[in-house]
Formats: sequence, C-alpha cells, structure tokens
Amino acid sequence: MTTPLPTYEDVLAAAARLEGHAHRTPVLTSRTVDEEFGAQVFFKCENLQRMGAFKFRGAFNALSRFTPEQRKAGVVAFSSGNHAQAIALSARLLGIPATIVMPHDAPAAKVAATRGYGGQVVGYDRYTEDREQIGRELAERHGLTLVPPYDHADVLAGQGTAAKELFEEIGPLDAFFAPLGGGGLLSGCALATRALAPDCQLYGVEPQAGNDGQQSLRAGAIVHIATPQTIADGAQTQHLGNITFPLIQRGVTDILTASDAELVDCMEFLATRMKLVVEPTGCLGFAAARQRKSELRGKRVGILLSGGNVDLARFCSLLQQR
Amino acid sequence: MTTPLPTYEDVLAAAARLEGHAHRTPVLTSRTVDEEFGAQVFFKCENLQRMGAFKFRGAFNALSRFTPEQRKAGVVAFSSGNHAQAIALSARLLGIPATIVMPHDAPAAKVAATRGYGGQVVGYDRYTEDREQIGRELAERHGLTLVPPYDHADVLAGQGTAAKELFEEIGPLDAFFAPLGGGGLLSGCALATRALAPDCQLYGVEPQAGNDGQQSLRAGAIVHIATPQTIADGAQTQHLGNITFPLIQRGVTDILTASDAELVDCMEFLATRMKLVVEPTGCLGFAAARQRKSELRGKRVGILLSGGNVDLARFCSLLQQR
Repeated sequence: MTTPLPTYEDVLAAAARLEGHAHRTPVLTSRTVDEEFGAQVFFKCENLQRMGAFKFRGAFNALSRFTPEQRKAGVVAFSSGNHAQAIALSARLLGIPATIVMPHDAPAAKVAATRGYGGQVVGYDRYTEDREQIGRELAERHGLTLVPPYDHADVLAGQGTAAKELFEEIGPLDAFFAPLGGGGLLSGCALATRALAPDCQLYGVEPQAGNDGQQSLRAGAIVHIATPQTIADGAQTQHLGNITFPLIQRGVTDILTASDAELVDCMEFLATRMKLVVEPTGCLGFAAARQRKSELRGKRVGILLSGGNVDLARFCSLLQQR
Repeated sequence: MTTPLPTYEDVLAAAARLEGHAHRTPVLTSRTVDEEFGAQVFFKCENLQRMGAFKFRGAFNALSRFTPEQRKAGVVAFSSGNHAQAIALSARLLGIPATIVMPHDAPAAKVAATRGYGGQVVGYDRYTEDREQIGRELAERHGLTLVPPYDHADVLAGQGTAAKELFEEIGPLDAFFAPLGGGGLLSGCALATRALAPDCQLYGVEPQAGNDGQQSLRAGAIVHIATPQTIADGAQTQHLGNITFPLIQRGVTDILTASDAELVDCMEFLATRMKLVVEPTGCLGFAAARQRKSELRGKRVGILLSGGNVDLARFCSLLQQR
C-alpha cells in the first residue's frame, strides 16, 4: 500500500492552519540587484519567519494535525538545527510536550534556543550513536509521535506555503531559486509553483560539496552520499526522501550547486546592501541565480532566502576569513 | 519675514512625490520582543529603505521640488554619512548633477558609495576647514542649490512619510520612539503623529554623550554642544535646527537618551533575533523603549529603525568588543 503523494490542496490546507501563527514574510527588492541582473528580482525573506527560518511552517502544520491522543503524548524530533527549534516552538504554541534529540556537541546557542521554547533536549554522541534509532526508541517507549525534518507530507506542505505567498503577492515568475537539503522546502515549493506559475522554471540549489539531489535527478533514483563538508549546515543531508524525491522529479526544472565561497559572498552582499542576516544555507538560491544572471536578463526572478539562524560570531568569522 | 513652519500637508505632498521611488518599508514584529515587553511592538524598518536609511525620503522630496534652473545647475550637500548618499542617489534618479563635500578621512566605503551613485566628491580637511563654508562657496560660485541634512522644510516633510506609512499600516499607537540627531526625522514624524495618532506619546532618542536636544527642550531654546563622542555617528549633531526645534517642541512628548553599550546590545538583539542589520544610530529608539518597558506593558508601541549603513567590519568589531 502506498500513500498518495501530497498535492497543492495540502499546501492550501496548510496555509489555512498557519494563518495567524506564521508570519507572512515580506518580499524585498533591491535596485542594486535589479541593476546587477538586468532583471526584476524578488526575495522571499524566510529569514524573517518566526524562529528565523521557513521550518516553522512545516513543523506547525504537522503538529496542528495531531489527534488529541498524539497531542497529549507528545512529539519527538531529531535535529541539531532549525527543525528542532521549529518543533519546540510549534509544540509550545499548541500545548504539546516536545522531546528533541540533539548531539552532545550541538552549539550551545541552539540547545539554549530549543530549551527556551520549552523543548526537552535528549543528548547523544554523534560518532557512536544513531539519532534516528534513539528517536524511534523514544517514540515507541513513550508513545510519542516522530516528526521527521523533511520527508513528511504535512511538513513539506507547510513549507510550500512560502512559495504560495510569494506568487500571490507578486504574480508569476520566469524563474525561482530555492535551497535544497532533504527536499521538504523544494518539494512544497514545487507544488505551489506548478499550481500558481506553471511556466516558471524552478531550481533547487544545494552545496557543491553535497550534490546528491543533482545526482539523484540525473540518475532517476535517490543517491546517498557521505555527510558533505560545507558551511551550509542546513543542507548537509545525505539523501532526498521517498516523498520529496518524486515531487522534485515532477516539479523541478533542474538542480544547481553553489560553492561555500559563493555563499559567503552572498551573505556579505545581503548584509551590506539589503541589511539582512542570512545563514549560509539561506544563500544557496541567490548564489545560483547570480551564476546564471546573464540568462536571466529581462526576466522576473524569485529567490527564497530560507533562514537567518547563524551565530553572530560565526557570521563575522566567515566574513573575515575571506 | 519668517517662513511658516511645515505642516502635515507637506508630509502628504512628500508622500505623493515619493510614490514609486521610495520603498514602502515593511513593519516587522517579534514575538520575543512582545513577550519581553508584555506589549505589542511594531518596528518600522527604514534600514530596508533605498540606500539603507530614511534619509532617501527627505533628499528625494527636496530635489523633486527643484525648478528646471536648479536641476540644471545642480545640488551640493555636505555630509559624511547617509545624507550624502541620499542626495547622490536622488540626484541621479532625477538627472541632477550632485556635488558632495566630504572629509578627506571619510570611510572609503562611504566615498565609494557616493561616487557609485554618480556624486562628485569634494574633499576637505575636517580639522582646518569648515564644510558649511565650502558648501556655500561652491553653491555661490556655480549656482548650485545647497540641501542641508535636516533643517529644511522639504527634507523633514519627506522623513515624516515614514511615520505616516507606519500609522496607516498598523493604526494608532500608545507610544512611538524615533532616533534624534538634528531633528529632521523627529520633526517630520511629529507632524505625522500629531495628525494620525493625536494621543500617541512621541519620544525622540539621542545618544547619552550628546543630549543637546534634551537640554534644548528643557531650556526652551536651542542648546549647542561640542561634537559628542558616540558610536551613533548619525546623531553626532551639535544642535537642533531653527525649523526642527519648534516642531519638536510642539509635537514631541519628551527626549530620552541611550548609552553606546545599550546600542550595541540592541544591534546584537536585532541581528540575532530579527535578522536585521541596524546601524548604532538606528538602534536609539529601541534602546530607549527597552529602558521603559515596564511602563509600556499592555501598550501598542512603535519603534523606528532608522538605518542599516554600518560597515560590516565595524559591526563585527562592535559586537566582539563586548
């Protein structure tokens, strides 16, 4: 038995659930960028979303669909990044107990933020233990519901609301660039893009060091890789998901890559010229659009800035290393 | 003969001139700030304005009112900061030649930005020469029109459009905090506030090291001070203006101050939690609102973030010095 894949109807339902809970993030423009590209460029600023990333959308949507029994028992998630904070915050808002499995050496700021949202943090050794197994054991032992970071219909439908808002606000686009890790954001955006702007070219962008998505699209099957070494810590995934991959195959024009150096250039530009703090992963779409700007002349271009959760000390050190 | 003071009608006229040229900047909220204050707090993000500060509004409005003869001859301005860039950009957009008088030791980035907008930069020695005199001589010799940074009816009417947009978007407020240097922004905001939210308390906020505005309000006359030593380089003015002061007397509830340490705390908070780059001067309003948060419980509070033009190396060094 296979569950049918989510559709744009699921994105619409997610948007209704997020109303009044998620920020409708601003779409910003820059004349400097427009002149650099010779195009009209629209930035959907998910770094200005609650808890600093689009991940809030998917987490809140998934938790909103819990049954009363699931709500009472609680949620468990494994993540050292934005998904952890998104689940912890959404759970607090919905009155659901949350357990987050994070490595012992996770950045103190992320652990503190997760605890600050009321999440219970369970540590593990990332070199000797398997977080998925720990998460599953906790789920079974305590009757918790596991919400994975991307390969989940409600999670990806929630992420797609970002693209829905963008198209509703600014109309059709010729090309749209979004970061790609496990594919939750990209597959959700694909559903919205195909429904609202069928002719728009949609590009997923992953780190050069970890192009498993690009390889998978070429191969026609999910390719697994070793954890890539990149500053784009939100896109260090090893493979796409069983739900996200077919949606990406259907809805995405191509998958591109960007180097760490290009990401730092974009971070600097966005901070200096647009006054926005964007994390390295959040710059993937902009970096790939810049590579192709000669092809984008005269076009309407959308770029999704996916998050801004970068420690300020790290932000400054990345900029100073150049 | 005295010219009548500008009114809210001038702000309305400025808004019509700025339509399609200035960004209608977003109003952002943060649940973290709302919880910290126990209030509803609205940030008007002028750091996301064109050229990175509200100054574009006043400069563009002033230059839009030039006669054909004035446009042909050109504009001159003296400034080492945001006013220079605002005049240079507005002049370029309107096809007016611009000459900007800047100190020889002005930051290279600001000189480059001004030149990048097409402005002709005339250097001077800030220790031995008087920039106002140089500006006036250039104006007389070449028939240029001098546009001062704040004490000018069209400049301050333009700045007031930021407050107009805020009230139009979110309705009345109980309290509103805006940075204060020479008073162009504050006096323009006073016109809009008194017209659109008559019961709103309006606070101007200046650096602790240079509280000439506070002294002037207490004394009932413009007090001059030595150039204050503060990281808030946009508010190092020595005195209010002959036009801005009476408007501030009439329209402002009180003038408050914030220390450099408080400004750095706000810069860090805004970058970390709201993903915004705000220059030290731009944090003045937020810093003073935080001082008074116990009095603001349950209220609707507006905070104007006036600009984001801080060199990233300086931004990082200020944050790391703490």
